[in-house]
Amino acid sequence: MPDKLLRMARSAAGPVRRPVMLAIAGDSAAGKTTLTRGLVEAIGEDRCTALCVDDYHRYDREERKGLPFTPLNPQCNYVDIMEQHLQLLATGQPILKPVYEHATGTLGRPEYVVPKQFVIVEGLLPLSTKLSRACFDVRVFLAPPEEIRREWKVQRDCAKRGYAPEQVLEEMERREPESAEFIRPQRSHADIVVKFSPIAGRNDPPGTPLSAELLLRPTIRHPTLSHVLTDDVATAMHLKIMRDADGTPVDCLHVHGHAEREESRLLEEAIWADLADKGELPQKLGEIVPGQRSEPLAITQLFLLYHLVAAAQG
Amino acid sequence: MPDKLLRMARSAAGPVRRPVMLAIAGDSAAGKTTLTRGLVEAIGEDRCTALCVDDYHRYDREERKGLPFTPLNPQCNYVDIMEQHLQLLATGQPILKPVYEHATGTLGRPEYVVPKQFVIVEGLLPLSTKLSRACFDVRVFLAPPEEIRREWKVQRDCAKRGYAPEQVLEEMERREPESAEFIRPQRSHADIVVKFSPIAGRNDPPGTPLSAELLLRPTIRHPTLSHVLTDDVATAMHLKIMRDADGTPVDCLHVHGHAEREESRLLEEAIWADLADKGELPQKLGEIVPGQRSEPLAITQLFLLYHLVAAAQG
Repeated sequence: MPDKLLRMARSAAGPVRRPVMLAIAGDSAAGKTTLTRGLVEAIGEDRCTALCVDDYHRYDREERKGLPFTPLNPQCNYVDIMEQHLQLLATGQPILKPVYEHATGTLGRPEYVVPKQFVIVEGLLPLSTKLSRACFDVRVFLAPPEEIRREWKVQRDCAKRGYAPEQVLEEMERREPESAEFIRPQRSHADIVVKFSPIAGRNDPPGTPLSAELLLRPTIRHPTLSHVLTDDVATAMHLKIMRDADGTPVDCLHVHGHAEREESRLLEEAIWADLADKGELPQKLGEIVPGQRSEPLAITQLFLLYHLVAAAQG
Repeated sequence: MPDKLLRMARSAAGPVRRPVMLAIAGDSAAGKTTLTRGLVEAIGEDRCTALCVDDYHRYDREERKGLPFTPLNPQCNYVDIMEQHLQLLATGQPILKPVYEHATGTLGRPEYVVPKQFVIVEGLLPLSTKLSRACFDVRVFLAPPEEIRREWKVQRDCAKRGYAPEQVLEEMERREPESAEFIRPQRSHADIVVKFSPIAGRNDPPGTPLSAELLLRPTIRHPTLSHVLTDDVATAMHLKIMRDADGTPVDCLHVHGHAEREESRLLEEAIWADLADKGELPQKLGEIVPGQRSEPLAITQLFLLYHLVAAAQG
């Protein structure tokens, strides 16, 4: 029935402005929300829609009890509906997003979500299928070292979700095989892999922010930084060519936790200078929690903002 | 970003078989569910998906209390999401359909719906927009006389939803302006308008089934019946040319409630004979409630089945 398709297409509203789509994938407590929060604040809520795609549960908590998989498993989720909703958002259309209530472990009233100019999608599985990946302009994977992630998860789940540390660690162990099978493979499909971690071999004083390591794949065009950064790894910020797991050359941008504000400002300006039509350099990036700031986080966020603005400019 | 669209399209699965879509629109208690039930039974649940599109509520019962409109009003519904879901079903894709719980008046866990070969969509507003109408192969509007509908609604809402007759009548009165503004105009967009009613001027004994009057618009090709039916209105079944409200010629098929089984069988065979590749004539149509059968309902259902099978055969 090609005529029906044609009628449907012709009856649809005229061409809609398609939003710029950013994916931030990563395991539980990998830092997705912290990274996203700063981006939304910099762009402004009037121009930015942020959503989490971890609500496409096929089963509620009660139903999952007898099942041989955790929510990390695609079989436990309506991945086809997640793909569908990502396509709809990517073409400027609203969705009725399912809502999973963490407090009760049940599925509740869905939420009407309209994509604004920028859409940031964070979650466990947004880069898990070919179709879902095709919906994004920029794909990010967060890959902190497992010991850092464990620390963050215990901290958050105990403080905000009322669990005991042993419970959290036990659950992480139970989920590990599915983390390995379904979450971590998304790393290879990211344009940018972000790793926040302490620098190996250094004994920075407690309270020093974690360093950021950004693996920059040539799957999208990154800002030119080789004129302001060298590959001298002894400096607080450097850019170094290396080989990706599959042998292709990639750049690796390092920003150490002890980098000075003055130093990082130069890098920020270089990143922003590469935009054709740049507004003011966004301020107030890098907030971990109110009052606690990290230069490496700020630069990571600015780097993603660069890509969002560049994609919007076509 | 045409490239993103292209990537999305190319990443999607190959061409899916598109289901045949039938809309049954009409006001509350117009007989939509009774009509649908027989169709699903005749086709078989393995080949037929039936759904009601009255669950796209923007507000729950509590939130509606202060609002100046009833659920009949498009403003009270996510009509854009209903359109979206109809398009998805029409192109063979699953949806996560919202669910309104009548018992509590709240929105609950959405339901995963996969379109089978035939999709029957009943509800208050499935023909209310140009885009929603474009999703259907066959569009039906149920238009019983208001006094019949009132009787049916009081009967059902008191028996099944625990209301008192005065409450039901009061609510109908409150809804009347929106019935006139939003529900009844869909009649003009139907390929077939079905009216079950007693025959004016006849005093059939109580228990005589209602007659069916099918207005057949030339917007789709109907089975040829003029060789078995005349326009002699004194007979129990007749076919009569008349002018539609806008002046275009339409056919009007009448099946009286007192039609004999033998007589109606001839008509059924004539309807079915018009199919290129006909299976067996479906039996057991026309059930109003278990044990109570109506020839006019049976023929109406068969007529719709003809259209479903014809559309499937292209």
